[in-house]
Amino acid sequence: MQEIIDEIVNKAVKGEIELHEIDNFLEANAAMVARRQAIERLTNTQLPSIGSTILDYSEIKNRNAENVIGGIQIPVGVIGPLKVNGDYAKGDFYVPLATTEGALIASVNRGAKAVTKSGGTRVKIIFDGMARAPVFKLDSIEEVSKFLDWIKKNFSKIKEVAESTTSHGKLINIEPFVLGNNVWLRFVYETGDAMGMNMATIATEKACEFIEREFGEAECVAVSGNMCSDKKQSQINSLHGRGKTVVAEALIPHEIVKTVLKSDTNLIHEVNLRKNWLGGARAGTIFQFNAHFANIIAAIFIATGQDVAQVVESSSGYTWTEVREEGLYISVTLTSLEVGTVGGGTRLPTQREALSIMGVAGPGNPPGSNAKKFAEIIASTVLAGELNLLAALANKELGKAHMKLGRGAKV
Amino acid sequence: MQEIIDEIVNKAVKGEIELHEIDNFLEANAAMVARRQAIERLTNTQLPSIGSTILDYSEIKNRNAENVIGGIQIPVGVIGPLKVNGDYAKGDFYVPLATTEGALIASVNRGAKAVTKSGGTRVKIIFDGMARAPVFKLDSIEEVSKFLDWIKKNFSKIKEVAESTTSHGKLINIEPFVLGNNVWLRFVYETGDAMGMNMATIATEKACEFIEREFGEAECVAVSGNMCSDKKQSQINSLHGRGKTVVAEALIPHEIVKTVLKSDTNLIHEVNLRKNWLGGARAGTIFQFNAHFANIIAAIFIATGQDVAQVVESSSGYTWTEVREEGLYISVTLTSLEVGTVGGGTRLPTQREALSIMGVAGPGNPPGSNAKKFAEIIASTVLAGELNLLAALANKELGKAHMKLGRGAKV
Amino acid sequence: MQEIIDEIVNKAVKGEIELHEIDNFLEANAAMVARRQAIERLTNTQLPSIGSTILDYSEIKNRNAENVIGGIQIPVGVIGPLKVNGDYAKGDFYVPLATTEGALIASVNRGAKAVTKSGGTRVKIIFDGMARAPVFKLDSIEEVSKFLDWIKKNFSKIKEVAESTTSHGKLINIEPFVLGNNVWLRFVYETGDAMGMNMATIATEKACEFIEREFGEAECVAVSGNMCSDKKQSQINSLHGRGKTVVAEALIPHEIVKTVLKSDTNLIHEVNLRKNWLGGARAGTIFQFNAHFANIIAAIFIATGQDVAQVVESSSGYTWTEVREEGLYISVTLTSLEVGTVGGGTRLPTQREALSIMGVAGPGNPPGSNAKKFAEIIASTVLAGELNLLAALANKELGKAHMKLGRGAKV
Amino acid sequence: MQEIIDEIVNKAVKGEIELHEIDNFLEANAAMVARRQAIERLTNTQLPSIGSTILDYSEIKNRNAENVIGGIQIPVGVIGPLKVNGDYAKGDFYVPLATTEGALIASVNRGAKAVTKSGGTRVKIIFDGMARAPVFKLDSIEEVSKFLDWIKKNFSKIKEVAESTTSHGKLINIEPFVLGNNVWLRFVYETGDAMGMNMATIATEKACEFIEREFGEAECVAVSGNMCSDKKQSQINSLHGRGKTVVAEALIPHEIVKTVLKSDTNLIHEVNLRKNWLGGARAGTIFQFNAHFANIIAAIFIATGQDVAQVVESSSGYTWTEVREEGLYISVTLTSLEVGTVGGGTRLPTQREALSIMGVAGPGNPPGSNAKKFAEIIASTVLAGELNLLAALANKELGKAHMKLGRGAKV
Repeated sequence: MQEIIDEIVNKAVKGEIELHEIDNFLEANAAMVARRQAIERLTNTQLPSIGSTILDYSEIKNRNAENVIGGIQIPVGVIGPLKVNGDYAKGDFYVPLATTEGALIASVNRGAKAVTKSGGTRVKIIFDGMARAPVFKLDSIEEVSKFLDWIKKNFSKIKEVAESTTSHGKLINIEPFVLGNNVWLRFVYETGDAMGMNMATIATEKACEFIEREFGEAECVAVSGNMCSDKKQSQINSLHGRGKTVVAEALIPHEIVKTVLKSDTNLIHEVNLRKNWLGGARAGTIFQFNAHFANIIAAIFIATGQDVAQVVESSSGYTWTEVREEGLYISVTLTSLEVGTVGGGTRLPTQREALSIMGVAGPGNPPGSNAKKFAEIIASTVLAGELNLLAALANKELGKAHMKLGRGAKV
Repeated sequence: MQEIIDEIVNKAVKGEIELHEIDNFLEANAAMVARRQAIERLTNTQLPSIGSTILDYSEIKNRNAENVIGGIQIPVGVIGPLKVNGDYAKGDFYVPLATTEGALIASVNRGAKAVTKSGGTRVKIIFDGMARAPVFKLDSIEEVSKFLDWIKKNFSKIKEVAESTTSHGKLINIEPFVLGNNVWLRFVYETGDAMGMNMATIATEKACEFIEREFGEAECVAVSGNMCSDKKQSQINSLHGRGKTVVAEALIPHEIVKTVLKSDTNLIHEVNLRKNWLGGARAGTIFQFNAHFANIIAAIFIATGQDVAQVVESSSGYTWTEVREEGLYISVTLTSLEVGTVGGGTRLPTQREALSIMGVAGPGNPPGSNAKKFAEIIASTVLAGELNLLAALANKELGKAHMKLGRGAKV
Repeated sequence: MQEIIDEIVNKAVKGEIELHEIDNFLEANAAMVARRQAIERLTNTQLPSIGSTILDYSEIKNRNAENVIGGIQIPVGVIGPLKVNGDYAKGDFYVPLATTEGALIASVNRGAKAVTKSGGTRVKIIFDGMARAPVFKLDSIEEVSKFLDWIKKNFSKIKEVAESTTSHGKLINIEPFVLGNNVWLRFVYETGDAMGMNMATIATEKACEFIEREFGEAECVAVSGNMCSDKKQSQINSLHGRGKTVVAEALIPHEIVKTVLKSDTNLIHEVNLRKNWLGGARAGTIFQFNAHFANIIAAIFIATGQDVAQVVESSSGYTWTEVREEGLYISVTLTSLEVGTVGGGTRLPTQREALSIMGVAGPGNPPGSNAKKFAEIIASTVLAGELNLLAALANKELGKAHMKLGRGAKV
Repeated sequence: MQEIIDEIVNKAVKGEIELHEIDNFLEANAAMVARRQAIERLTNTQLPSIGSTILDYSEIKNRNAENVIGGIQIPVGVIGPLKVNGDYAKGDFYVPLATTEGALIASVNRGAKAVTKSGGTRVKIIFDGMARAPVFKLDSIEEVSKFLDWIKKNFSKIKEVAESTTSHGKLINIEPFVLGNNVWLRFVYETGDAMGMNMATIATEKACEFIEREFGEAECVAVSGNMCSDKKQSQINSLHGRGKTVVAEALIPHEIVKTVLKSDTNLIHEVNLRKNWLGGARAGTIFQFNAHFANIIAAIFIATGQDVAQVVESSSGYTWTEVREEGLYISVTLTSLEVGTVGGGTRLPTQREALSIMGVAGPGNPPGSNAKKFAEIIASTVLAGELNLLAALANKELGKAHMKLGRGAKV
C-alpha cells in the first residue's frame, strides 16, 4: 500500500498526474495524505499540523472540498449567556465565535453581558428568501415587453418546473429588471433550514431551460446575472433582502451602560451618529452604516460551517441608537443574513457541534425554524458586538484593548 | 487537579464565575477544557470534535482569541500549479484554499490550469497602505478651517508621535475630509509584512491624543470614524485603496479556452459584460463588478490566518475581459486587498504551514516583500477563479457542478 | 397710482415691509414692478431685461412662484425631425431644448438625423408611478411588526382616504421598508398626465393622518422620509422607478454611422464600454452609466415647464450598445423620468407652446396618454444625444465642437 | 426680404433644407423668426410667446444655442435679505430664484429670515477645482505601470501643454486611476471665475494629444472617461470635489426657531436624522443626505445662466444638525458646486442682471473671487432652504403649503 502511495506521490511531484487525479487512484483519506506529501515535496515544506486533523476526506469529497490535504484549525470561543427574546430563539444562549483576531470575543462578551442584564434582545425576522437571478438577452425591447408579459402569465408553470428539482425549496416570486434588451429574472425561494443557494441555482437553471425552450426568443446568458447578488453587497439585497432580513433591539438602562460598559449613553449615541452615520455617508459605506457587523458574522460563520464568502452581504445593515429616558435604545438591522443549519459545511464535525451549542444543528421542526432561530441568535450577537464597540470607542479604549489582547509588544 | 477543574466547571455552570474568569483559576489549556465542559453541561451537548484540536490555548489567549473551548476544523485543498509573473511572486505556486463549499477548489484549479498553460498571470501592486480614520468634532467651520491648516503644518510632528508606537509602521499620509463641523483624518501607513490594522489603530490613537492636546479645539469622537473603512466596502477604499491595490491579467489563447475551459472566448466576454457589468450596475453591486472574488479570497484568508471579516472589502474590484486576436484577455483589479504574513492568525500552526506552501510565511526580506508576494499570488488565484466561473456560466454547467460536487441528491 | 407704488417701494427699501408683503398692497403685476424697483434700489442695479417679460404675475402667484420681479429668458432651439416608434408617440417630432450651453442642440440634432435615417427609435414605458414615502417612528420592533401587518390589512381603507384628496391620482401600492424602529411607507400613485408629486404629497399627508389616528402607536415624523426619493438619485428610484421607467432603442446601420456621424461602430461601442461602463464604475456614478442624459433632460425640462430640480433623478439610467451585423444597436434606459403635461410650469405661456410643438400640451385622451407620449419623445431624444456624443468622443471632436460653438476665443 | 424668408420657410417645411441650414441663408434674428415659422407650420402650432423675447440670436449662435426659435420665460423671484458671513460674500444679499414650482421661493425666504435674524450664515470654501478625466487603454498592466510613472515624471510638461490653450486655467493636479489595462487621468484645474468645464475639456484634449504622441503606447479612448464626472453624481466628485466644496453653517436660537419657523429645535433635528440620514441610507441616496439642495440650486442656476444639467452633482451633499444649548446648529456641505460668473449663459441679458443683484456679474478682482463669492451665497441660500423645509416637515405643513401656493384646487 505504502508503495502505491509513494508511486502516486512521485508521479504527482513529477507532474505526470494532476493533484486532483490522485483521487482516482487511492481511497479518499489515503489520497489526502498522498496529496499532502506531494505538496510537501513540491513546495519543500512540512505540513504536520495541517495533517493532524479529524476530518474524513471520504465525507468531504464531492460535497465540501476538493484536492484536500488536511484541515485548518481555528480557535473557537464562546460568548454568553446572551438572553434573546425572539419568535424562535427564546432564552439564554452561548454563541461560538471562531476567530484569530484578539479582543473580539472578549468584546462581544461584554456587550452580551450588558444586554442580558438589561433583559435581553428582542428580535424579528421581517423577510426570508434566497435569490438567484439569471440574465437573458433579447433582440429588442419589443421582445423584452413580450417576455415580461409571458413570465407573468406563466409563473405557475415556471414554479412547477423549478420546484421539481427540490423537495424543500418553494419559489415565491420572480422579480424582473430591465436594462435595454437585457432582462434579469430574480427568482426568490423559501429554502427551509438550508441557506439555499445551491438549491436556488439548480432550480433556476431548470426554470431557465424551460423558459428558453417555451418562450423561444430569450437567451439565458448566465444563470447568475449578478442581480442575485451572491457574495456581493448590492442595492437589491439591501432593499429586497437576501437570506433573512432581521432586526434586533435592546434597551440598556443608563446604570448598566455605566457599570458594565463603563460608558455613557450620550457618548455612545454620539459615536454612533458621527462614526456610523456621518462617517459611513462620507466614506460611502453604502450598505453598512454599522461599526463591525462583519467581525461577529465572520466568526459565527466560520464556527458553524456557513458559506464564509457570504459574510460580504450578510454584514450589510444599520445600527441605530436613541437616548431614551429609560436608557440607551439600540437596534441592528441586518438586511441580508444568509444562514442555514443543514447542507454545506454544517455537516462537518466541529461545525455541527458549534451549531448544537445553540440548539440549532440540523433541520428544524417545523422546517425552517432552526435557521430562523439561528438568524435571531446571530442578530442578537451582532447587537452585543455593536454595543460594546461603540462603548469602547466612546471610552477611547480600542487601541488599548488590542494592545492588551491582540499582541504582546511593539510591532 | 481533576477536582479543581470539576469545581471550576461546577461554578461556571452555576454562573458563580463567568466563562472568561475560568482563565483566572486554571492554566490555559486546562481552562480551555474546563470551559468546554461547562458549555457541554450548560447546553446539554457533546463537543468531542471541537475538543480534538492541536491548538495550544496558552499561545492563543491574549493574542488571537478569548473564552476558547477548542478548535474548528475546515478542509483545506490546494490549487496549482499556478504560474505567476509578478514583481515579487515569480514561478509556479500551489495555493491553499480552506472552504466547505463543494466545487470551489475544483473550479479555481481548472482556471489555474488554463492560466498556467497560457504562460501565467502578470501582476502589479499599484498601491500599498493601511488606513485608520478618526473623526473629530469642532465647534464651527471656522475651527474646521484652522484645524485643516494646523494638521497640514504639523504633519511631521504627528508622524513622529504616531511612529513612536511601532517599529515597522510608517505614516505616509493624512487625508482630511469634512462634513459640516466634523473632520475625518485618514491616516495611511506602510506596515511591512503585517496587514497592519492594529498597528494603525495604536499609532493613530496616540496621534489623536497629541492632536487633541496640542490643537485644543478638536475633540476626537472615535479613533475609527468609518472613513477607514475597516470591514466595510466603501467609496474611499475603492478609490484610494486600503491594504494593497493589485491588478493581475492573463491572455488565454482561444485554443486553451476551448480545450481546457471547454468554452468560447466570445461567450466568456459576453457573460462578463452582461453579468458582471450590466448585472452589477443594475443590482447596484457598487464595489464589485466581478463574479466571485469573495469565494477565493475567503478561502485563502481562512487558510492563512488573515482577518476573515476583511473579506468584505478585500473582495471589492473589477473583472475586465477583451476579445483579442491572440485570445481572451482577462484582468482582475482588487482595490483593497488586506493581507499580512506576520501577526494575527498567521502565527497559528496550520495557518503558518499554509503560508509556507506559497513561500510567504513570516517576515520578508526586505520587509514587506512577503506580504506583497502573497498579494500577487492571491490576485492571480482570483483571476483563475473568475476565468473559470465565467467559462462555467457560459457553458451552463454551474448548477450541474454543484449537483455533482456540492451534494449528492435532491435537496 | 404711481405714488402708491413709490411709497411701497420706499417702505420695502427701508425694510418697513418685507418683499413678499408688497403683494398685500398692490395688484399682482404692479407688485412685481414695485418689487423689482425695490430690488434695483436695494442692490444698486438696473434690471430692465428681467422686467421685459410677457409673464403675468397674477397668473403665477399662489401657483408657480412668489416674490417675483420678472422673468428669465433662455434661448430655445429645436431638434428634428426625430422619428419615434412608441406606443404613444408615433411619427416625426421636433423637440424644443432650452439651454445656454453651446453645441448641445447641434449635437443632439445630428444624433436625431442618424436615428431618423435609420428608421427611428422604438420605445417602451415599463413602469409608471409617482412615489411619496413618509417615515414613521415606533417604540419597538414588536410595534413595527404589528404596524406592517396593520398597513397590509388596511390597504383599501388607506387607499380610499388618500384618493379622497384627488380626482386623478390612484394609489397603486404601499411598499414598506424597515430600519430598526423606523418604517417608511412608500406610497406609489398613478397620476395621469401630471408629474404628480404635489398630488402624491397631499394624498399621502391625508393618509398619514388617518394611519396615525387609527393605528395609534406610530408617529409620522415627516411626510417625506427620503425614500421617495424626490430630487435625489437613489437605489430605490433606480430599482423600482419613480415617474416613468422608459427604454428607447435604435439600430443604426454601419453606413449611417459612417456618413452621418462620421464615425465607426466599433469605436462608438468601445467608447461606451470604457467611458460609460468602466469609467462609470471606477468613478462610482452609481445611477448613471451614461454619457450625458442630464444635458438633454435639463434642456427639455426647462423648455416645457417641468420641475427642473428633478433632472437629478430623471437623468439616472444606462446606455447600452452592441455591435451587430446590421449596425450599431444602442439603447437608453431611463429609470426615473418624472414628467407631466399638466400642472406646475406647463401652464406658463412659453412652456405650453413648447409642449404643443410635440403635440403634448395639456391633458391627454385617455388621461395619462400625453405624459406617456412626452416620456417616449424624451427618451428618444436622449438616445439621439447619447449616440452623437459617443460618436463625437470616438471622433475626438469634443473640445473642437465647444471651441467652435461654445465660445469664440481662448478663455 | 419677406419673400426670401417665406421661401426659406417653405423649403424648410418641405425638408429641402434642414432647420440649422436656415442660418446659412438669413441674418441671425431673421433666421430665428424663419425657423420658428417653419416649426409652426410643421407642427401646426402658434408660438407667439416663444417669439416674444428680448434674446438676440446673433449674440447667441455659435455660443449658447443653435437652431433657436425664440425664448423660454421663467418667473424669477427673490429671497432676502440673507446675511452671509463668508470669506468673499459679506453682508446682506438678495438672491434670485427662477422656478415654476409654487411655494419654493416663499419657503426659502422664511428660512432666510430665520438665518438673518440669527446673525447670518458662516461659510467656507474648502476645495476649488474643475476636473476632466480622459480614459486611456493600454496593452497590458506592464504598460500601465510605465504609463503611471511617465505621467508623474512629465507633469510639468503636460501642464505646460494644457495651459497653452487657456489664459486663466491652471492645471493643479493629475489623479490617476486604474482598472485592468485602462487608466483614467483626472486633470484638475483652477478656472478663475469661469465654471471651467469647456476650458478643462480643451486643455485636456490638447494634453491627451501630447501624451499619446510622446508616450506612444497609450491610446486615448475618450477625452471624457466619466471619472470627471460631469453631470453625474459620483464617488469621486463626492470625495475629491468638483467645482467648489463649500460648507455653510448657522446657529438659530431656539426663540427664532419658535417665532420665525413656528417650530421646535428637537423636532427639526429629529426630522433631519430620520428623514435625511436614516431615510437617505435606507433609500440609497448615496450622495445626497439632504432634503432638497436640488430645488434651490436649480432655481439659482436657471436664474443666473449656469449649466443647469450640472444641478445633478451640484446638489450632492449633507445637511447636519445639532441641538445645542444656544439653539439649533445647522450646516450644509456641498461637495461639488459648479458655478461661474463669466462664460456660458452668464452673458445673456436676464441672467447677467440676476448675477448683478448679488454683485457677482462678470470677472472678479482678483480673478476667481466673484465665483467664490457666488458659491458662498448659494451655499447660504441652500442652508436657508434646508432649514425651512425641515421645519415645515416637522410642523406637518408641507402638503398644506403646496395646497395653498402650488395650486388652487383638487387635482
